[in-house]
Amino acid sequence: MIKIGIIGYGNLGRGVERAIKQHADMELVGIYTRRAPETVTTDGAPVFTMESLTEQKDKIDVCILCGGSATDLPIQTPEYTHLFNTVDSFDTHAKIPEHFAKVDQIAKENQTVSIISTGWDPGLFSLNRLYAQSILPNGETNTFWGKGVSQGHSDALRRIDGVADATQYTIPNAEIIEKLKAGESLTLTTRDKHFRECFVVLEEGADADTVKEEIMNMPNYFADYDTEVHFISQEELNRDHKAMPHGGTVLHTGTTHENTKQVIEYNLYLESNPEFTASVLVAYARACARLAEEKTFGAYTVLDIAPKYLSACSDAELRKELL
Amino acid sequence: MIKIGIIGYGNLGRGVERAIKQHADMELVGIYTRRAPETVTTDGAPVFTMESLTEQKDKIDVCILCGGSATDLPIQTPEYTHLFNTVDSFDTHAKIPEHFAKVDQIAKENQTVSIISTGWDPGLFSLNRLYAQSILPNGETNTFWGKGVSQGHSDALRRIDGVADATQYTIPNAEIIEKLKAGESLTLTTRDKHFRECFVVLEEGADADTVKEEIMNMPNYFADYDTEVHFISQEELNRDHKAMPHGGTVLHTGTTHENTKQVIEYNLYLESNPEFTASVLVAYARACARLAEEKTFGAYTVLDIAPKYLSACSDAELRKELL
Repeated sequence: MIKIGIIGYGNLGRGVERAIKQHADMELVGIYTRRAPETVTTDGAPVFTMESLTEQKDKIDVCILCGGSATDLPIQTPEYTHLFNTVDSFDTHAKIPEHFAKVDQIAKENQTVSIISTGWDPGLFSLNRLYAQSILPNGETNTFWGKGVSQGHSDALRRIDGVADATQYTIPNAEIIEKLKAGESLTLTTRDKHFRECFVVLEEGADADTVKEEIMNMPNYFADYDTEVHFISQEELNRDHKAMPHGGTVLHTGTTHENTKQVIEYNLYLESNPEFTASVLVAYARACARLAEEKTFGAYTVLDIAPKYLSACSDAELRKELL
Repeated sequence: MIKIGIIGYGNLGRGVERAIKQHADMELVGIYTRRAPETVTTDGAPVFTMESLTEQKDKIDVCILCGGSATDLPIQTPEYTHLFNTVDSFDTHAKIPEHFAKVDQIAKENQTVSIISTGWDPGLFSLNRLYAQSILPNGETNTFWGKGVSQGHSDALRRIDGVADATQYTIPNAEIIEKLKAGESLTLTTRDKHFRECFVVLEEGADADTVKEEIMNMPNYFADYDTEVHFISQEELNRDHKAMPHGGTVLHTGTTHENTKQVIEYNLYLESNPEFTASVLVAYARACARLAEEKTFGAYTVLDIAPKYLSACSDAELRKELL
């Protein structure tokens, strides 16, 4: 049995707790949190303080770090990799090389294994970019996100004066995807690839036009996109827009000889983004435990790990059943 | 530079010759054939006899074996792995374990590396089945092939008395795929998943009804499918049905907590099946050269190989650009 500790218990941590139940070779030791354990309601797992994590060191094979990329993981992954094998979902793309270098050094010095930046993007989408570009080097990769809820954009809406609550959907431009799949060569702007749809609850007395104006002109987040804003009641928002669906597409269009077109398309349709991300983390926790068993210490990303390490089946079974 | 030898020069060998030109870190040493070299017209590559392969041993890093799975590869891959690092596309699913065991032993004894059963199925589709099932163990994988030309089924048509020539298209049932993606749980028969469409040229004097009857009732190939037969002229067949498009879908539908649906879909749309398969072989030839450089001798399948080995970029570049 692979014994797992969960560090941090938001949507992702809860997703990991649930995912572990689907794997017969895994066992959840506990959830470790900065909150008072008695205030945390889980799906059944015991809850411990962060302080007790070190004491329970020998009971845990892999810690899955479920904090955020902005402030938690840049501190936590290096810190816990001193003592534990770790898996994280660090997703600040630009800072991955730095995060990797730091964690790699600590893992090698302390004879641990850490798999960073798992999940679906970075993660499964990265894998698909790599496979596609290696196989069809004469080609182009486009990534589309959605339809799904962007937490970052929803947060940006909620920070606007006069906004009580909000949900933002990122919507890929299906027409552009079809044109690329048909082999058209397109020069795409940011505006071409995605739309943004906002469902906004106003605070009492707030002016809809002013709020809408501010949204439409918000740099980086909305100004470069075709953005639609709907004002709705808190009741409607709670009823229809509090789920966390997401997904997306990695589309690689290439040519082999002359103009022979070849298309590789990878799609995710996710009813729960955090539960799916959690499922990826858990599969990589298995890889993490195996690499630690093989004593090949250091940091890894999904690009470094042979696919078979994710599976509970033996190599011989995989060759027989899946090839 | 990775120096490649191509063994066998049919559609696949020609595709490999073309694919190598797209990789700046690869060089084609030559094509080795059982035919008289002067009778073989290539896209520019020199042609040598099979006998000269051994003499040129030191010039070649990897041999890509482009023979067929029925009779060539079961003999050739073991034989050439005695002296060379090899890559093949052995695709007789049921015999892969046996082929692997034989090649693995030879590779280990002779300090070579062999990557067997690359291509897209087995190959990329196998990878996707493995990733999807490891991440969403509570789920179901369905593979659909087409729309594309099945050489095996086209050959079966051509063996019928009264048939001069024929092309068979395998067509996936798009309606079933949509239902699965929508989360429906279906019990699928062979007939549900694919249709078969046959374009047949009759020999002079042959009776269309008799031929059609024989096709529709042919066990394994057509009897279990909804099959459509069109009789056309050789001219039409040559004009419209001599290309080799193919493709397909690996669809994994799973649930995480309770009934939360998560769907992973991988699609290939290929204008040339042999050229795409060749492109996969060539990317794995790079992996083969690297594994040989690391002296990790033995046989491998796509499931055993870390994705980064397929790329010409450094690990640091991949982390920076693709994660």
